[in-house]
Amino acid sequence: VNVNGNPRRERIDLADLIRGEPPTLDAKLAELHEEDLADLIERAPVDVAVEVLRHLPHERSASVLECIAGERRADLVERLGSVQTALIAAEMKADERADMLGELEAPVAEAVLAQMEPGPADEARRLAVWPEHSAGAHMTTEALRVAPDITVAQAVDKARAHGEEAETVYYVYVVDGDGRLKGVISLRELLLAPADRAVSEVMRPEVLGVEPMAPVEQAARLIAHYNLIALPVLDKERRVLGLVTVDDVMDVIHETTTADFHRVGAVEPVATSYLQTRFATYFAKRAPWLAALFFAEILTGDALGHFEHVIQQVTALVFFIPLILSSGGNAGSQSASIIIRSLAVGELKPAQAMRVASREAATGLALGLMLGLVGVTRALLWGNGGEIALVVGVSLIGVVLVGSILGAMLPMLLEHMGLDPAVSSTPFIASLSDLFGIMLYFSVARAFFL
Amino acid sequence: VNVNGNPRRERIDLADLIRGEPPTLDAKLAELHEEDLADLIERAPVDVAVEVLRHLPHERSASVLECIAGERRADLVERLGSVQTALIAAEMKADERADMLGELEAPVAEAVLAQMEPGPADEARRLAVWPEHSAGAHMTTEALRVAPDITVAQAVDKARAHGEEAETVYYVYVVDGDGRLKGVISLRELLLAPADRAVSEVMRPEVLGVEPMAPVEQAARLIAHYNLIALPVLDKERRVLGLVTVDDVMDVIHETTTADFHRVGAVEPVATSYLQTRFATYFAKRAPWLAALFFAEILTGDALGHFEHVIQQVTALVFFIPLILSSGGNAGSQSASIIIRSLAVGELKPAQAMRVASREAATGLALGLMLGLVGVTRALLWGNGGEIALVVGVSLIGVVLVGSILGAMLPMLLEHMGLDPAVSSTPFIASLSDLFGIMLYFSVARAFFL
Repeated sequence: VNVNGNPRRERIDLADLIRGEPPTLDAKLAELHEEDLADLIERAPVDVAVEVLRHLPHERSASVLECIAGERRADLVERLGSVQTALIAAEMKADERADMLGELEAPVAEAVLAQMEPGPADEARRLAVWPEHSAGAHMTTEALRVAPDITVAQAVDKARAHGEEAETVYYVYVVDGDGRLKGVISLRELLLAPADRAVSEVMRPEVLGVEPMAPVEQAARLIAHYNLIALPVLDKERRVLGLVTVDDVMDVIHETTTADFHRVGAVEPVATSYLQTRFATYFAKRAPWLAALFFAEILTGDALGHFEHVIQQVTALVFFIPLILSSGGNAGSQSASIIIRSLAVGELKPAQAMRVASREAATGLALGLMLGLVGVTRALLWGNGGEIALVVGVSLIGVVLVGSILGAMLPMLLEHMGLDPAVSSTPFIASLSDLFGIMLYFSVARAFFL
Repeated sequence: VNVNGNPRRERIDLADLIRGEPPTLDAKLAELHEEDLADLIERAPVDVAVEVLRHLPHERSASVLECIAGERRADLVERLGSVQTALIAAEMKADERADMLGELEAPVAEAVLAQMEPGPADEARRLAVWPEHSAGAHMTTEALRVAPDITVAQAVDKARAHGEEAETVYYVYVVDGDGRLKGVISLRELLLAPADRAVSEVMRPEVLGVEPMAPVEQAARLIAHYNLIALPVLDKERRVLGLVTVDDVMDVIHETTTADFHRVGAVEPVATSYLQTRFATYFAKRAPWLAALFFAEILTGDALGHFEHVIQQVTALVFFIPLILSSGGNAGSQSASIIIRSLAVGELKPAQAMRVASREAATGLALGLMLGLVGVTRALLWGNGGEIALVVGVSLIGVVLVGSILGAMLPMLLEHMGLDPAVSSTPFIASLSDLFGIMLYFSVARAFFL
């Protein structure tokens, strides 16, 4: 891996490699970072991928499988067979192993569990109870717990022994006889503390934690806000069940942000990277939303049909339709993108709806007045006469005002209902605003002209 | 701080607190996490905030100022005065100190630097050379460097000594006599290794790094991809200049993602949280984009004006305008949100433009055919006759195809030009697609009816 972290992966073809001599093959595979090897395996044909996974030492296959997500991993595991998978699964981190088994179909998962040692198998079953987006489902059970009365030197020894199996020891958790969390001390602080002091004297007594049923995003926010490396998962009695680490949390943030981006653009979230996504999948993620929005716009067309006589009488009204429609939609997109992001990062709560509504009303009015003024000027310059100018001006103020409020309040409403606010995509808000805009514009026009 | 990490901040009024008795005040302030105290200070009136900062021990004020960003921090520092600020700055992390000084107006920053000790002042000047979004500007210089021939026990001692001043020792960097990076070993690995071995025997020889001029997003991607806690910043000779840590990187990811979200919705990025943003600022972030998009739609209105005779002849054509316009815009939004995100996370490079274009062409055509079919059916059911149905169908195919390609290629073009792809916001793409849609629709109609 060179200084810029471009790990040569572009030049490697696994299919070529696997046909090579074992010594060369092993050397080549060994020099790859597990994340990069995982990328290669994800892209390779499934039989090449399975062959490589069989060839690697179990521990290495385990690290690689930890880096591969979702359907692709399930495919590979089914092809590997339950015996081979159980051997590899035994070397995986507890949370990753549970994740992987959770992705398999129930009979396949059971076949793998049947081949595993009772200890890890039980743990996997225990972790499987937490729902998919909970902190519990993303925790590792490797937390290092010590009693409050041992010395710093003893705690260092425990960390040393524990470190053999746990990759992520950054904090030592001090627990009482019932396993309840009393304090925390980082590995760095432990090294700095006098060796003969009791850990209870050097620990920090107040410890942030998260409940296992809490959404993993809550753990992500706490870790980001307080600059933590790991956060303990605590039950109601404050017993340490495990911990969520910053690297797991970064993956969660990455995935939810991508999903939000896609939803805001009216696409069902796509889990694979753009060029890796199959055509049929990509089509299926876009088509339903596009069709739904199309039907919404048919309503707008219907509404327009009701004003046929107005249109026939004053054709010039038609020229302003794109202005009216787009202004409402654009104002709505602006509000929605701001509010959806504020909700996603937890800066805003549904309870603050009234403050948001009044703020959007004020801003929408100001923006509407601005655009209304430009619109009136344009209509007069176009020589459309004062009446059309007035109709355009009033409609622009109304549509920008309503677009802004809709764009802000719809995400708030969805969040309040426990749904993803990003589902109120900018195209969806634009469609609602279009319908309102057409009705307002032609109603005002009819009042003026008929 | 309770188990759910809701640190009681809702109930605390700093202005009340500061009027209280010193012992109570100190106790209350001491029990707050620095991040929460920073939140309170950000929200308080500026004179209350300054009073609290003066009252706190310098080290604590330093931690708090590290958590406050941008303009607000600059305001506070100006009110604190250069002597007080220099005392606080001396306790700040090197990268945060450089950040803070960089935000001040040059004469104010110089006044503070003049009051500081020569060592930290020089370091701040050295860090100030790196451009705002570079890895260099986000690094801390606290990296722990050791010679390859010292023993593990000696390295642990060095880590212990170094830990007194550096908050973030997770890795020990092994460097040769010229300061060139030879390997790395984590604190955990150091604890596990036999005490009398040379560090060169237990270190990992291949080390990822980033150049100081590289965008900080590159560091963020490497840290996220390889699950690192810190990444060394290396010059051309691979000398360790400092390191970028995962918590800095999470802040960077948070900020750039928020900016992308805002830009995609056609809003200039707002740095403060929604309810904290002043009305005038919020208006100023939205108005220019809304006005620019408005002028773009005036062009669409102009284009529509050119087809006045077609409209007068076949009024029913008007009823399909919202359908045609929105379908192109929606398809464009979908492509844009997918491509902008793919570019932001580095999954896609501008060099792959041809593959993206052909994929969008295929998808756009398929989606266009689907919507075209629905549109034709609707027109026939509406009783608009076969000619209008055909014009609508052809236009829908064209506008969805072109919208998809535009939505994907415009972000690619911006990225290629070194600009932020998110500037090609979904409203902007919708506007372009509107103009094309109107021209296509009425050109086809004219060909059929005139």
